[in-house]
Parts: sequence; structure tokens; C-alpha cells
Amino acid sequence: MKNKKINMEKLVNHCKNMGIIFPGSEIYGGLANSWDYGPVGVELKNNIRSLWWKKFVQESEYTMGVDAAILMNPKVWEASGHLASFTDPLMDCRSCKTRHRADNLIEKHSKGSVNADKMSNEEMESYVVQHKVACPVCGNSDFTPIRQFNLMFETYRGVTKESNSQIYLRPETAQGEFVNFSNVQRSLRMKLPFGIGQTGKAFRNEITPGNFTFRTIEFEQMEHQLFCKEGDDEKFYDFYKNYSMEFFKSLGFENDVLRFKDHEKLAHYAKSACDVEYLFNFGWGEINGIHNRTNFDLSRHQEFSGKNLEYTDPATNEKFIPFVVEASYGLDRITLAVLDNAYDVEELEDGTEREIMRFKPSIAPFKVGILPLIKKLHSEKAHDVYRMLSKHFRVMYDETGSIGKRYRRQDAIGTPFCVTIDDETINNQTVTIRFRDSMQQEVVALDNLVAFITSKLAEE
Amino acid sequence: MKNKKINMEKLVNHCKNMGIIFPGSEIYGGLANSWDYGPVGVELKNNIRSLWWKKFVQESEYTMGVDAAILMNPKVWEASGHLASFTDPLMDCRSCKTRHRADNLIEKHSKGSVNADKMSNEEMESYVVQHKVACPVCGNSDFTPIRQFNLMFETYRGVTKESNSQIYLRPETAQGEFVNFSNVQRSLRMKLPFGIGQTGKAFRNEITPGNFTFRTIEFEQMEHQLFCKEGDDEKFYDFYKNYSMEFFKSLGFENDVLRFKDHEKLAHYAKSACDVEYLFNFGWGEINGIHNRTNFDLSRHQEFSGKNLEYTDPATNEKFIPFVVEASYGLDRITLAVLDNAYDVEELEDGTEREIMRFKPSIAPFKVGILPLIKKLHSEKAHDVYRMLSKHFRVMYDETGSIGKRYRRQDAIGTPFCVTIDDETINNQTVTIRFRDSMQQEVVALDNLVAFITSKLAEE
Repeated sequence: MKNKKINMEKLVNHCKNMGIIFPGSEIYGGLANSWDYGPVGVELKNNIRSLWWKKFVQESEYTMGVDAAILMNPKVWEASGHLASFTDPLMDCRSCKTRHRADNLIEKHSKGSVNADKMSNEEMESYVVQHKVACPVCGNSDFTPIRQFNLMFETYRGVTKESNSQIYLRPETAQGEFVNFSNVQRSLRMKLPFGIGQTGKAFRNEITPGNFTFRTIEFEQMEHQLFCKEGDDEKFYDFYKNYSMEFFKSLGFENDVLRFKDHEKLAHYAKSACDVEYLFNFGWGEINGIHNRTNFDLSRHQEFSGKNLEYTDPATNEKFIPFVVEASYGLDRITLAVLDNAYDVEELEDGTEREIMRFKPSIAPFKVGILPLIKKLHSEKAHDVYRMLSKHFRVMYDETGSIGKRYRRQDAIGTPFCVTIDDETINNQTVTIRFRDSMQQEVVALDNLVAFITSKLAEE
Repeated sequence: MKNKKINMEKLVNHCKNMGIIFPGSEIYGGLANSWDYGPVGVELKNNIRSLWWKKFVQESEYTMGVDAAILMNPKVWEASGHLASFTDPLMDCRSCKTRHRADNLIEKHSKGSVNADKMSNEEMESYVVQHKVACPVCGNSDFTPIRQFNLMFETYRGVTKESNSQIYLRPETAQGEFVNFSNVQRSLRMKLPFGIGQTGKAFRNEITPGNFTFRTIEFEQMEHQLFCKEGDDEKFYDFYKNYSMEFFKSLGFENDVLRFKDHEKLAHYAKSACDVEYLFNFGWGEINGIHNRTNFDLSRHQEFSGKNLEYTDPATNEKFIPFVVEASYGLDRITLAVLDNAYDVEELEDGTEREIMRFKPSIAPFKVGILPLIKKLHSEKAHDVYRMLSKHFRVMYDETGSIGKRYRRQDAIGTPFCVTIDDETINNQTVTIRFRDSMQQEVVALDNLVAFITSKLAEE
């Protein structure tokens, strides 16, 4: 069952206090909606990325990875259509000179009853005039016509700021897979169907980001593009829908917090498209998109590059441009969903509460807390245990405060196992393992500790 | 012994043909010095990054990781000094309007006998006039005075291009560790000495990049900042010098291709600084820098942010700004060094040659090639073996061509083990393992295959 005890403010504070996620550049007052992963968050994010790579690249019999550059030849964005149409509709207030998204103005004014996504620029402009939509800053209603504002961050390559040196921070990773289609296919003699997987950063100059790390100007994508013959595309679309759900369940999500949402309005190139949504504390939000992109991408790149991107079927010698089924995952959003889903407050028998992050052990940031019972007596031995376990797992050493307090700290960052080092460890080579969720304890021989934890982590 | 059989052109071609590294945006004619990692290269790079994280973060008893945003508050770059002085000295040719680095002009003109790094702008300008240094494009000698060109890529946050919305792509990851010093220290109750480790992309608008992936406009750093009391800094400086060498040896480098190079000219904040250099096919090149940065960084951030960044010694209550010892690693350069070092051509008894990448098995991109002897008879069983092994290792399936050709392909991408699936596999549940370096073969039971490969990978 979905835990209802958290709201975003509480989660943001918990993340900051526990070293999970900090506001970016915080000592300078931050930078609008940029966030830095702290010691706990970076391990969680790395574990999710590794698991994704294992499931989508390593264990797939037909998938290869790539890691394409963030800065690409600007013609890529002509071909993809981003230069022409990856835009937000902006209006300036003539009174106070502030700038606003027309769709946001309309949705706010109509209290969400009008869906501006489906309106043309002209429709939005006349809605604003007819309904006398007010500027949220000065209250007047005197806006310029809509100007389309491109969401790609621009910069310049080289020493002059001429248009021929203008380049962009990629707004999505997908084009890195598409432009490398032939290189991957030829260098590794791939036969259709085959996949290309990639993880990496992308950037969007969003003017209304928000909801913590849900919508940010800089984010990491994990993406799998399946290249296939037309006709096989629908089978793979269904396959990746199901496989996505399996992946999310392997991260610890239950059925009741996940749903499919089919796109009402398809992009002009898409044959079918759906999202997987997670029930965040602020409502349902997209964490994954699956798209049947047809042969749009490779056709456009063939047209704009002048390079032949056809595939020759080795059995029939037939030449054609492959279809693409995309499965795209937002790593920051998934990490946020995992945090949101894991947070819990439990009432204990003595009436006190404990904060606990119920991460699945396999993706928990730290696997083991190593706690010497009495610093003076047991810390040397505890350091030995640290050195032994840290060869295998990410572990944390903590010798400060009562053992109860130290258990609470590990609970609050979701460490599944605490190992207490005491006289028994020194005299009998055993430790006490305490489990995060049950708070039960068990005595384990030091010799058997790595194997014991390894087997616990492998449990589903 | 250093293998001398490779030059850069051969390495670039090998990397492209084998799916290791492709030119970035290649179908569009590329983008000057950007490169995309292919299926083989991305696995190698990921393995090196993981090993670094294990050695510098996971196994360190006092180190925490972070992952800070690429886009930071621009005041960070005021404090760090990058806005004022992270520049190249540029001159325009008045005749042909081309732009050049003054230091490069002088070094080229003097055939390397003059080190322009040590000259002031005025000294460079008068050298160019006195020696009538010619423009490499038009041959005339009529240059403007030097203008300092900042190497940071600029972009704009939000919808207006006003100076207060100007931000930068970080030119180094280090500031992400410094601005999070207090957040990490407080949230995880760290005591000095402690470290912060990070891996991530950085960007420099270099006008003379080159040598394949050695100097590029976009690159990944792996960085460890050790915060300590003044007085402990020299001990840690020496420690990280030695630890760096150990790390490089764990990647498979021998002594004769590595050396320390102390900096002749120290940055104004540095107390001591040295590089580790690797003997590339083009000569010695930096792959790691170790710097005693004193308390410069945190002092500057305290000054520019107005936030107190002092640490309070829990034993003495003394307050002070910690010293920093930095160990910084270029992931792309190290990957290039590993490729350069691993490449070999071996003459076989029959007079033919084989290309072989002698990666240490623990960092090899693919661990196992799975080769059905006869496609029709053995591919089904081979797929079973793929599914079994791919849960544990990155493996590659190849059923095309003679078994000898398939061995050669795996040699050329450095796969340490090939597993041949034949009638014996079907009848007796055994496979033949063939070793990359020795080309010896051994029969192993399927039941024992995962354990056999795991133990081989653990060998040093």
C-alpha cells in the first residue's frame, strides 16, 4: 500500500538533512532547480543506473551500449526537429516587462479546466484577450503576441560568436543512439532486431521546473532504442511496456503506485506511445516513456546527412530503413520515486517514532552500518570489519552516540543491515546483525559475514 | 615493456572498426574533437570508473561520494577564479582576420625552444613583433594585441540573454566538492580528515584540442578531495601520490610507462603539485594531477558566499578552514592510455598476425565470447549459456563465420575468455574455454562455469 505520510517539503528536508540530495550551489543561494546528489543519493542513483544497464544492456542478447557526447553537430537538431519546434509559447507583459508561458497563464486562469496543450498559438492569444487573463506579476492584461522560445541551451564552439559556431546542449540522449546506428551495426555485425542502450545527461531550459528533482534543467536519461523491421515494431512495443513494469517492480514498487498512460496526442512521427506513471506525493507523474517512433528518426538523419542509413536484410537482400521502439527512463525521476516510495515513519512500542527508508536491499545506498559498541574497546576491530566488508559492499562506519541513535541514523538512510562489533567479536569472532525492517537481531560468525550479506542482498 | 607497434592513426582506426570509439556526430562530418564511445568503449570506460569509485570511495574509510550539477551558480566561478583567469591569450591577424593563440604562435615559430607559458601578455606581444612571427594562414605578420579568451562555455538560464542570466558549463568538477563541503560534513557528521569523491563531465572551449580523446571539449573527471588540518596536508599529498600509482597498476600499467612529473610553475594557491604521466604513442601525457591546494578553495568560497565554512575540531573546539589535497583523474585520458597500452600485434606460428587488446581481465569490456561451433546445431544451447552468464558478466554472442575468425574478433576487442558450445555441451554439459593471451583451451563443466570465470577474473 502507498504510504501517505510524506509530502514534498518533508521529503526535501529529509534528503537534505540525511545527505541524500542538496540544493545545487546552495552556499550561493542555489541555482533555480538544480540539485546536487549527496553521499547517500549518489549511491542510490548509481545503483539504479547499474541495475538498468544490467537489465536493458547486459542481460539482453541483442543490445549494445554507447556513450555519445553531449555536444553534437548542430545539424543533428535540424534533422530531429528540435531546432524548429522544441519550443515553449511565451508572451511578454507590456506593463511590467515580465515573460510568461501562454499555456501556463491559461491553465492557471481556467483553474485547470482548459488544456492549453491542444491549442494553437492563435487560439491561446485570443483566449488570453477574450478572458482578460491577468499578468501574475502586475495584474494588468496587456500581452504581446506569442513568441516561440526554444528550450535548448545554446553555446558557442570556438572563439567567435557567429551562427556557424553555435551549438546546443543536447535536450535528449536519443539522437546519440540514432546517429550511431550504422557505426554500431557495422562494427559489431549486428542483425535486426537489435538494441542500443545509453545513459547520460540532457539539458532543457525550462522556465517552470519544479517538484524537487522531478523537472529540472539538467537531468539524466537511461534509454533503449530497439531497431527492427516494420511489422515487428508492435511486438517490441508491447514487449518493452511489459519489461518496463518488470524493471520497476525490481526496484521495489508495488502495482498500486504504477500505471500506464497512453498518449492522447501522438507526436507526428509516433505510431503509438505511452508513459509509465508513478504515484508521487504530488500526484501521478511520468517516469518512463515507450514510443513506437516508426522509421522517422533514421529517415530524417538519412535525409539531412546524405548518408545511407538503410539496413540490408542478409537473408533477402532487401534494403530498408529500420523502425525504432524507444524505451526512455528519467533517472532523476526514478530516484525521486524510489525515495518517495521508500520513506516511512513507524510507531514503535515505546510510543516513539522512527524514520525509515524502506529501500529494497539490492538498491540501498549503503548496505551495512558498522557500529563498534564502545568506541574505545571495539573501534579497532570495527575498522578491520570495515576493510573486509568494503571490498564487497558500500558500507558506513559510525562510532558516535548511543547504539540506538546509530540504528536510527542508518534506518533514516535505508541501510538494510547494521553490524555491531562488541566483546563477542573480539573473543569469539562473531558479530550481531540487526535488520532494518524487522529490527530483529542475529549472531553471525565473522568468517561467514560476507556470504551471509551477499545471500540476503540476492533475496527478492 | 612498452609495446611500440601502435601509432595514433592506427589506434583511431582500430577503435572505430571494432566499436570502441567513433567520431562524434560522424554522419554529419563530426564536431571538432568530440567522440562517442561505442559498445566496446563504453564498457571499458564504465569498468574503469567503477574501479576508481571502489578504490577511492567505497574502500576508503573516510570518503563520501557526491554528484553535483554541471550547471552551477555563476558566483562559483568568480570565487574559483575561473571567470577572471581561466583564459587563453588570443591574437587576431589583421590581414586575414583569423584568430590564434599567441603562445602557440610563439612555440611553433621558435620550434619549441621558447616556453610561452611563462611569458606575460606584453612579453608575448613584443616577441611576436620582434621576431616577425607569421600568421599560419596568410603568412603576414600583423597581429592585434592579445585578448584573453575565457575557456568556459557560456549559456543563458531562462528566456532572456541578460548578463544576470548567464551561466557556464563547469570547466572542472572540483567546485562541486568544495561547495558541498559543509553539507557533507554536517549531514553525515564527518570528522577531519575526510574525503569527497566525484565523477562527472566537464567542458572546456579549447581551440587546439587533439590527440584523439586526450584533449577534447567535453571530458569526464574522477576526483577525490581530501579535507584535513593544516600540517596533515603533506602526509596526504604523499599518500595520494603513492595511491595513484597503485591505482594505475591495478589497471594493468607497468612501471616503465608511468612517471611522476612535479609542476615547475605552481598555481598561486598550490603548495605542491605533480602529475602522473603515461607514455602514450605520441609521448608522455598527463593522466592524473595531485595538488596540495592549501585552504585556498574553502577560504575563497567563504569570502564570496558569506557563509561560514570553518570546521570546529571536536577535541579542541578550535575553528579553522581545512586544507585540501586533490587527486584528479581524466577518465577519457585513462581509457585512452589503457587502449594504447593494451594494443598488441602478435605473430603466430603460421606466419599470420593477430591483433589483440591485452586488457586486464577485470577491466576488459566483454568478459566472455559465447560461440556456438555450428550455428544450426548449437545456437539454442549457446543462448542458454548466454542467459546464464549474462546475469553475472558482460558477454557477447557471436555465431557468424569460422571459429578461428570469431576468436580473432574477440581478441581484437580484448575479451579474455571464449566459450565454445559444441556437441559435448549438449551431451555432456561441458564447454571449451579458450584463453585470449595463451590461446590454450580447457574443458569446464557448465555447472562450474560461472565460478570458474569469477575466479579467473579475481586473479591479479
